[in-house]
Amino acid sequence: MSDANPYGLLFEPVKIGPVTAKNRFYQVPHCTGLGHVRPRADAGVRGMKAEGGWAVVSNQETEIHPTSDLGPFAEGRLWDARDVPALRLMTEAVHKHDALAAIQLVHNGNHAQNHISRAPVLAPSEMSIDLAQPKQARAMDKADIRNLRQWHRDAAKRAKDAGFDIIYVYAGHNMTIAQHFMLPHMNQRSDEYGGSLENRVRLTRELLEDTLDVAGGDCAVALRFAIDEMQGPDGMQAAEEGRAVVELLADLPDLWDVNVADWSNDSATTRFQSQDGYQNDYLAYVKQVTNKPVVGVGRLTSPDMMLSMVKKGIVDLIGAARPSIADPFIPTKIKEGRIDEIRECIGCNICVASDNIGIPIRCTQNPTMGEEWRRGWHPEKIAPQVSDTDTLVIGGGPAGLECAMQLARRGYGVTLAEARSEFGGRVLRESQLPGLNAWARVMDYRLNDLRQRANVQMFTDSKLDPEQVAELGIKHVFVATGATWRADGIGRSTQRHPPQIAPNAHILTPDDIMTGAQSPEGPVLIFDDDQIYLAGVIAEKLAKEGREVIFATPDSLVSGFTANTLEQHRIQAQLIELGIDIRCNQSLTNLTPNGAQLSCTFTGRNTEVHCASAVLVTERHRETALYKALQNLDLTTLELIGDAASPGLIVDAIFAGHQAARDFERDPKEVEQQYFHREIISLEMDEVL
Amino acid sequence: MSDANPYGLLFEPVKIGPVTAKNRFYQVPHCTGLGHVRPRADAGVRGMKAEGGWAVVSNQETEIHPTSDLGPFAEGRLWDARDVPALRLMTEAVHKHDALAAIQLVHNGNHAQNHISRAPVLAPSEMSIDLAQPKQARAMDKADIRNLRQWHRDAAKRAKDAGFDIIYVYAGHNMTIAQHFMLPHMNQRSDEYGGSLENRVRLTRELLEDTLDVAGGDCAVALRFAIDEMQGPDGMQAAEEGRAVVELLADLPDLWDVNVADWSNDSATTRFQSQDGYQNDYLAYVKQVTNKPVVGVGRLTSPDMMLSMVKKGIVDLIGAARPSIADPFIPTKIKEGRIDEIRECIGCNICVASDNIGIPIRCTQNPTMGEEWRRGWHPEKIAPQVSDTDTLVIGGGPAGLECAMQLARRGYGVTLAEARSEFGGRVLRESQLPGLNAWARVMDYRLNDLRQRANVQMFTDSKLDPEQVAELGIKHVFVATGATWRADGIGRSTQRHPPQIAPNAHILTPDDIMTGAQSPEGPVLIFDDDQIYLAGVIAEKLAKEGREVIFATPDSLVSGFTANTLEQHRIQAQLIELGIDIRCNQSLTNLTPNGAQLSCTFTGRNTEVHCASAVLVTERHRETALYKALQNLDLTTLELIGDAASPGLIVDAIFAGHQAARDFERDPKEVEQQYFHREIISLEMDEVL
Repeated sequence: MSDANPYGLLFEPVKIGPVTAKNRFYQVPHCTGLGHVRPRADAGVRGMKAEGGWAVVSNQETEIHPTSDLGPFAEGRLWDARDVPALRLMTEAVHKHDALAAIQLVHNGNHAQNHISRAPVLAPSEMSIDLAQPKQARAMDKADIRNLRQWHRDAAKRAKDAGFDIIYVYAGHNMTIAQHFMLPHMNQRSDEYGGSLENRVRLTRELLEDTLDVAGGDCAVALRFAIDEMQGPDGMQAAEEGRAVVELLADLPDLWDVNVADWSNDSATTRFQSQDGYQNDYLAYVKQVTNKPVVGVGRLTSPDMMLSMVKKGIVDLIGAARPSIADPFIPTKIKEGRIDEIRECIGCNICVASDNIGIPIRCTQNPTMGEEWRRGWHPEKIAPQVSDTDTLVIGGGPAGLECAMQLARRGYGVTLAEARSEFGGRVLRESQLPGLNAWARVMDYRLNDLRQRANVQMFTDSKLDPEQVAELGIKHVFVATGATWRADGIGRSTQRHPPQIAPNAHILTPDDIMTGAQSPEGPVLIFDDDQIYLAGVIAEKLAKEGREVIFATPDSLVSGFTANTLEQHRIQAQLIELGIDIRCNQSLTNLTPNGAQLSCTFTGRNTEVHCASAVLVTERHRETALYKALQNLDLTTLELIGDAASPGLIVDAIFAGHQAARDFERDPKEVEQQYFHREIISLEMDEVL
Repeated sequence: MSDANPYGLLFEPVKIGPVTAKNRFYQVPHCTGLGHVRPRADAGVRGMKAEGGWAVVSNQETEIHPTSDLGPFAEGRLWDARDVPALRLMTEAVHKHDALAAIQLVHNGNHAQNHISRAPVLAPSEMSIDLAQPKQARAMDKADIRNLRQWHRDAAKRAKDAGFDIIYVYAGHNMTIAQHFMLPHMNQRSDEYGGSLENRVRLTRELLEDTLDVAGGDCAVALRFAIDEMQGPDGMQAAEEGRAVVELLADLPDLWDVNVADWSNDSATTRFQSQDGYQNDYLAYVKQVTNKPVVGVGRLTSPDMMLSMVKKGIVDLIGAARPSIADPFIPTKIKEGRIDEIRECIGCNICVASDNIGIPIRCTQNPTMGEEWRRGWHPEKIAPQVSDTDTLVIGGGPAGLECAMQLARRGYGVTLAEARSEFGGRVLRESQLPGLNAWARVMDYRLNDLRQRANVQMFTDSKLDPEQVAELGIKHVFVATGATWRADGIGRSTQRHPPQIAPNAHILTPDDIMTGAQSPEGPVLIFDDDQIYLAGVIAEKLAKEGREVIFATPDSLVSGFTANTLEQHRIQAQLIELGIDIRCNQSLTNLTPNGAQLSCTFTGRNTEVHCASAVLVTERHRETALYKALQNLDLTTLELIGDAASPGLIVDAIFAGHQAARDFERDPKEVEQQYFHREIISLEMDEVL
């Protein structure tokens, strides 16, 4: 690194107990949906972070015992010695790049359902498990607490065996037994583990002492602690008991990893928390209380923000989960002064959604995330061109931009043609809706890259017809013409019974709203049969513009899918506060210029609502006319990608564009085989160790 | 078998194409939540069915390709040759008992989310995927159809390699591409695969022809077909196009496996479909149209019903999924004239719920289900007693009954003491609620068994105190004293803010309702913070008694958990039709003699409702007073089991009772190790084959 690097401070080493982080970049523990179910893929993710320059790379919450069984969700697992080899894959991948590997041991208490192990669910006091499953936890007795400590010690020993440099005690996200003991509403014990704060912190202290003992000066012991529950006086507050906990344990751990609870507050989306560094106010005092290094998070992607946090003494280490997913090479790029090459996290929480659905991690910005092992994808490297040929990408939305950028990186000549006056497609349109501004980073990053490349020609206002394509003489064509929202009301719930729509009814689609092509009149009905996020955002927009809005959906919740992105609760609260008339469990049967007939999804009973216009958010039609016409040309490559091939989320469009560019001029057999690359259960007999 | 067996007809062999079923008992394909994720456990389940006497044992829907990826759900998988060894475990386990093994190949079309493979989602026409996930399927082109046929052929070849005797083509449950092509609302194609019924059936015909070709006379080819969508004229009807399909394909498959769609209709619970044989009216004509054998289902547990179905010519083979889960030994028991030993399915659909949650199968009646491999449990066998000693079981609810029965089977002397005047505990109480009558089978089966054993003494009206226990002189005591519903309103949503309850408010608990100890007055508020099934059943009961009912829950649905048992839609519809005032997304903050204050879970806004009494369905207190008092006695064994240890579902109580009896006088180390027995990912490098 040149001394002139203004971010030199970020590259100073930091001592963490007996180990030393080579710089201040610290990937805090985060889930991947891979874990013990897909250990090679997980090691692929972690190794890539180390390659990208993170000084510390953590794994994810790692179950220490069958009484903390998170299945069917795929987290880490260290129940016995048989789990060590899988975790060693990760430590080896991380050490290869001179980084430290951290493991987040956990007992999840009543957050574990023990669905697969069928073990008892444990909690400080009697209570339901914290997920809507039919079970209650039992209050732990002294033997349970002794056992728990032994399990944690055993797991710490095995973590050492697996080669980890930092071992966590985890008291955060309202998901762990250590934190549960701290919270008065969960701990009604009358023994030495309940009552006073000192008593409620006792278990965490013991776990720290046990782990330090096992670590024996060979590895560091970190405490991940939720300093504030974001419940005001109804929960732990950073300035009250949160601070008292830090004071009580001050120099006991080798590292403080502090954040806010619950997960939806820690991993807030840009839609509801637009500023990075949003946790700074909560954690600012921690360094004043402890002499040990502190790591904090807050969707940190700006090197200037990072620098200021270190300079101000807020943190010693720059923590990141989501920013390190969107760009595993942030440290390297800052070190090399390539700031404008950082692929910034857009805060959409698709990564979080993957974990909540129980599937491998994916990222809107970084299509290689989770594909390091399976497809051999690298976020910064791509195979060079096979031949010296030119390519044409039609459509400058997310799929087209990503495809063009990756083809250009491979060295192909690229012509990118966009029909509209601006690039960006749906990303441009959606990012202009309330709260989705940061999503524009998806196009900004790619446009910035494309505009600097000599082998790329970019055209807007260029709606091509087959003749024009033929004239260009380019034999390799990728069609990313996107999709258009339907105006006929056909969707998930209306397939068997399409709604009757009067010819003079005032119908709008999301495209009309986003492009401003049409304005809704009078009271407007939004019918959401898409059930993802868009209808909810449009409702917010129209209500904020002062319109009377009725929101009807066959789902039982507004924007139900967003429960996965940790936003649903906020969205529905917001729509209620905006005065929107919400009608859940309702499908649409009839639409006239003056009103609509809704039908109860349970009983079929009809309700009339008055509205002067209706926005139908149902399904999309793929724009395939040009693709079909091009089939008559003598093209060597003609590929339909993105929403034009299969309407989905932006993450899907980026993935499709990336995949098309990667697979261009590759052996089709090899391409197909990547779909089959997977992890398979061992059939060899095993002994319980 | 004696010639005198009145059910001799059920033990005649049936020729199925080139193979022969040794009797008429046919376990149709059903999910286990094990599949390719837990192949040894799956083979354990299937092998046990074969041991129990089923002539045919099928696996579950088995994905043939990454475009039909059902992950994270654990179904069968046969993507390539690497999956053959796992499936061979099953065929070997089945063949060992002289039974035939069947495999249900499937391409799920737009029912597959391809979440993990990230492959395109395929459908006959453009449409959303049929689960609330943000993706749309693409309409299959001719190349897609050719590929699909090749994938199915390849899978059939591998199924043969794995040793299967019967290979399915699957067109049922509204979950498969073959059926999707048949349904006009899903198939808007204008080519030879769309339009006329003959065209819409073309794909199924081709898949059958392909599979027969691959089978080459070595194995049979079955068609599983949903003959009626139970949508009236809005869907396929058995008497209309359903019959026409059977006519079109009449003798093409070697076997017809017919049922109704969707899954909630095929696997109807006893709560909504009390009669077994409930599908007979739909499938009665099939045998008149085809010369090939026919298998049908309908929760068939009664040998008389089975006999009459064969005699009447409705079916050749008695199909069963759930009854074979509740009792894998039905055929053997009928053969040996042990009819009253059949453990009848109660139609609660906990087995189905397991699959929907993505976890291993479990069964309320049969606690060994899914534990054949992991814990080595056998439904009919248990290790004999270790010592000649006596045991005391306190509490005759589900946990106590199961524990006592299994201890008695082991040969221990058993004293069973129940405080109330009848055995059954919560099962007795709950089975008296509307629709839950069949749940009484849980106690009936166990009481019938216990009453025939000389080593068992049973006492009702016997509420024991520690002195009485001491007097009995039995040193091994199992305490199954159950749990009591709380009356203080504390539950999942009210932990931080317990509701304010006026001392003179009229509060009832589910126990009051079930025992009839108290009657609600005037308009009654039911507050459901349990969110499982009980509050919904109580609402039904009270409304049917003519009371005015307000149903409030913090969940967005009534009895939300029952979506897993395929009942939620019916339950909410029923409550609406009964005129119940449903308030979702509402918690309880305040209760007075005249009314309640509810609080919106999104905004905290309050609403007042008028009510004269309130039933609080929140959490349960474990009844542990006696257990605690007994700790002062000098007992060798003192174990708390069932709801008294950890309140859950009845399935959990039965499991706990069973486990306690199995583990009694076993090496505790061995007992603990069973929690660690599991299937682990192979870390060896694999090649895509």
